[in-house]
Amino acid sequence: MRAPTISRIAFSARCLRSLKRPRRWYSSCAESKRAFQHNRMPLRNLLIGSAVGTVVALTEWSIKNDQFSSTTPLSELESPQYCRDGKKFEEAVARLKEVLKNDAECYSVSKSDLEAHSDTYFNTHKATQEQRPQIILFPRSTHDVSEIMKICHEYAIPVIPFSGGTSLEGHFLPTRVGCTVVVDISKFMNQIVQLNSLDLDVQVQAGVAWEDLNEYLAEHGLLFGCDPGPGAQIGGCIANSCSGTNAYRYGTMKENVVNITAVLADGTIVKTKRRPRKSSAGYNLNGLLVGSEGTLAIVTEATVKCHVRPVKETVVVGSFPDVGAAAACTSKIIQEGIQLNAMELLDDNMMEIINRGGATSRTDWLEQPTLFFKIGGRNDAIIQEVIGEVSRIAEDHGCRKFEYAKDEDEKLELWEARKVALWSAINEGRAKDSSVNLWTTDVAVPLSQFSKVIEATKEEMSGSGLANAIVGHAGDGNFHAFILYTDAERQRATELVDNMVKRAIDADGTCTGEHGVGIGKRGFLVAELGDAPVDLMRTLKLAMDPKRILNPDKVVKTDPRDHEA
Amino acid sequence: MRAPTISRIAFSARCLRSLKRPRRWYSSCAESKRAFQHNRMPLRNLLIGSAVGTVVALTEWSIKNDQFSSTTPLSELESPQYCRDGKKFEEAVARLKEVLKNDAECYSVSKSDLEAHSDTYFNTHKATQEQRPQIILFPRSTHDVSEIMKICHEYAIPVIPFSGGTSLEGHFLPTRVGCTVVVDISKFMNQIVQLNSLDLDVQVQAGVAWEDLNEYLAEHGLLFGCDPGPGAQIGGCIANSCSGTNAYRYGTMKENVVNITAVLADGTIVKTKRRPRKSSAGYNLNGLLVGSEGTLAIVTEATVKCHVRPVKETVVVGSFPDVGAAAACTSKIIQEGIQLNAMELLDDNMMEIINRGGATSRTDWLEQPTLFFKIGGRNDAIIQEVIGEVSRIAEDHGCRKFEYAKDEDEKLELWEARKVALWSAINEGRAKDSSVNLWTTDVAVPLSQFSKVIEATKEEMSGSGLANAIVGHAGDGNFHAFILYTDAERQRATELVDNMVKRAIDADGTCTGEHGVGIGKRGFLVAELGDAPVDLMRTLKLAMDPKRILNPDKVVKTDPRDHEA
Repeated sequence: MRAPTISRIAFSARCLRSLKRPRRWYSSCAESKRAFQHNRMPLRNLLIGSAVGTVVALTEWSIKNDQFSSTTPLSELESPQYCRDGKKFEEAVARLKEVLKNDAECYSVSKSDLEAHSDTYFNTHKATQEQRPQIILFPRSTHDVSEIMKICHEYAIPVIPFSGGTSLEGHFLPTRVGCTVVVDISKFMNQIVQLNSLDLDVQVQAGVAWEDLNEYLAEHGLLFGCDPGPGAQIGGCIANSCSGTNAYRYGTMKENVVNITAVLADGTIVKTKRRPRKSSAGYNLNGLLVGSEGTLAIVTEATVKCHVRPVKETVVVGSFPDVGAAAACTSKIIQEGIQLNAMELLDDNMMEIINRGGATSRTDWLEQPTLFFKIGGRNDAIIQEVIGEVSRIAEDHGCRKFEYAKDEDEKLELWEARKVALWSAINEGRAKDSSVNLWTTDVAVPLSQFSKVIEATKEEMSGSGLANAIVGHAGDGNFHAFILYTDAERQRATELVDNMVKRAIDADGTCTGEHGVGIGKRGFLVAELGDAPVDLMRTLKLAMDPKRILNPDKVVKTDPRDHEA
Repeated sequence: MRAPTISRIAFSARCLRSLKRPRRWYSSCAESKRAFQHNRMPLRNLLIGSAVGTVVALTEWSIKNDQFSSTTPLSELESPQYCRDGKKFEEAVARLKEVLKNDAECYSVSKSDLEAHSDTYFNTHKATQEQRPQIILFPRSTHDVSEIMKICHEYAIPVIPFSGGTSLEGHFLPTRVGCTVVVDISKFMNQIVQLNSLDLDVQVQAGVAWEDLNEYLAEHGLLFGCDPGPGAQIGGCIANSCSGTNAYRYGTMKENVVNITAVLADGTIVKTKRRPRKSSAGYNLNGLLVGSEGTLAIVTEATVKCHVRPVKETVVVGSFPDVGAAAACTSKIIQEGIQLNAMELLDDNMMEIINRGGATSRTDWLEQPTLFFKIGGRNDAIIQEVIGEVSRIAEDHGCRKFEYAKDEDEKLELWEARKVALWSAINEGRAKDSSVNLWTTDVAVPLSQFSKVIEATKEEMSGSGLANAIVGHAGDGNFHAFILYTDAERQRATELVDNMVKRAIDADGTCTGEHGVGIGKRGFLVAELGDAPVDLMRTLKLAMDPKRILNPDKVVKTDPRDHEA
């Protein structure tokens, strides 16, 4: 058999030559073998290649496990080698279109689509024109996504999963020039597959918007536990471990996933569980995939928990002398073990914005730090008991005004005031200056640190001269800052965010409670956890996606030449 | 420089020879490089080795990622190569003792210790005499564990983490002959490090028994969310994702971990998080490590959530005509959104055992399927409201007798009746025949399937002629079967368990709701999820532990020659 003989010489020749760089050398062998297997390169090239430049390209894959260690420092990696050959890329795109039956509905290269999938107003980090993706694919099924990944894996093409596009830290930012494909599951994979009302779970495709799901569940007396930003879809909710105002009562996405159907980097389809609410069967793949930000797999379908809507629920609003007192009140309520359905903190700036924005029918909210309590129960007697306890603690913390929702409309409106906060802030900014940017960020800290950290942050922001507001999921020790800034003021805004995060980390908290890392917080992640845990995350990434094609450069750096903060 | 020249020839020679088995060949290079780096082998040996048998040993490492795929089928692996050289092993043990300052308190080779760390009465799977570990190490710190792992990693020595030793599926069963080390953190690493009562979390070492922790927390009005088998320790609770009767209210270990300090296979120490109650910072390492059964890391310390003890709590007991009606009652309560603190089902056999065992002061329990409800609230008014709702639903399901705990003592006693179930069952068995074995197993199913599956299982067990009982964490759709059998009856017992698991899987449930996979349920794991998810678990295992030294052969097979069910 001749071929092996030729390649054998090639291999050994290269082995001899590259011994001084053993890792490159292993990888070269791996790459050659792969090329050989896939028949994408005449054997002769291996031989010639071994004598000329080709080798360099071939030898730049890097597999950390050659060293048998459990973590992967960035410094031990070579840069990933993506498809850089225009012809090859065209060939791949043609095959991708074939998978989608060359149906023009299933892909787009229109400038507007490419733009829309590269950025949003809410992203602080921006992609350059060169980084724009080459094509947007709209698969119709998990099978489509699998076939797409097989091809992108073979050609080493970066793939960015996309659903609602509401993330805030550059989660879907294209970073690689000239060869990026976006897989958008929102267009055709947005069906509610099956409600299992007796099991309190529902099977959905990843492109279902959480509000649509919630509306559907409401008809059955149920609700979805998480309430992230408007427009978020289940795929992104899982990828970014979303939460929201209800997380304090119903948990984050981590606690609300029953099973996930996902496509791995090489196109393998996995379903993590069947439908038990509780399971100890094998590694917790749900736990690993939730929050992996599209870097480990593309979520295509999931079963999520439903919760029974409270028979009765009301909203109570209290105004406090300062944000510290309000925060301390929430901590006290939790420490006393009073179970509310939500507990939201809005600072005086945000109340002022809400009044000015006229987002609710009333515009006479006390412009003081304000707490919104959502209180549910089986009946009015129980709710009254709880309201009594909450008002007692609120008064102990200097609560000046304590308002009850009189009816369902007012309850919704009170809550609306909380939910419209972000939009009000944006309008506020645009009103001032159409070019103004909004920086939205979040941190979370232990409950005992909440009032201290939020107070210090507020103080610095007030002194910054930048319009800002703070909104907190007080029940989780998690708060958001909205900062309005012009390009000229970006440096100052950056400092505010840096200090807010440092303050949270110094208080034994985290750089992000619910927004995730994306690109924006990769540096903070290392500052928060140190090298070893992040190097372990890199090991997991490389194990599941050795070619680093799934949403490259998010969560952890996988390219030593990546110098972005 | 001469050395590299020699080894260079060795490498190329071996590369040429082993080309027909490329994976073996990469690994051989990797292994040689490792040996070379660690200076544990004269360079000459590489050269000689390349010409003789040594090569075989050197070439049998197997790293799946060479193929760039995301999953690792068992068939693509070579068998792991553990330290098989007696002298090398002695050398390693000497170094391990040095790490522990040669303190005789810190290690043991006594027969009784080796036995005690190999098996318990509750394990259905047994280790052979040959599989007994060689030494038990009792580290004093995370640093000790790290140094131990560095040495075991260097010498490729299997390590079995051990804490309470209460697992049921052979989780800590030694499987490898002649070179196994057990790391028991229970002896010296059993301190409560710090209670952060305002944050509702507590930092503990992994060797703290959960009952001790709970006793300590009770003094502060707090409780630990999980209540697994008596004697379980936090390290094992995390490794096996324990839960128990309270999981329905407070979640399983997955929902109760704030952060984990663990030692990886190569000795790297990682701390997964700081102390925020909510975080989206990077991959969810808590989620990955909880339930990994000591195969990915050794947990040495953790911060776990505390919950505020209900101000008021009572227990209510109801008897039902049949187990199906009782199970249906629990499902209905959940579907109505009534939040109880626990909901436990005991079948007629178990009630009979409790009466006969005299485990509680009364022995006149109705020997009918019985539900124990733990109902908590802020005050009596709220509790009475809930009791009213529960009794209504119970009556709808044919509840014959509905008893309230009159006082704290009776409440504890009622609950005791549930907790002593297992012990009663064992005494029951031993009374009959001192050689009788107990098989304890569990499954979990969607709520709507609970009554059907539990009823069918009960029917088959009743007809089996084997003494048995069923106890269910009804709130989670999770139930346990206890089967008493003699060696002669093992086949019949095995069939009962097989059928119970198949029934659960057919009902879209899981082969284990809280006991875990260990060795006993590896086959069922594949039956439940199919190959791809299990092959992905294997990828994660090999990425974090390429030498497969951490608790080998548990959860997923990593040796193609491993033919155990």
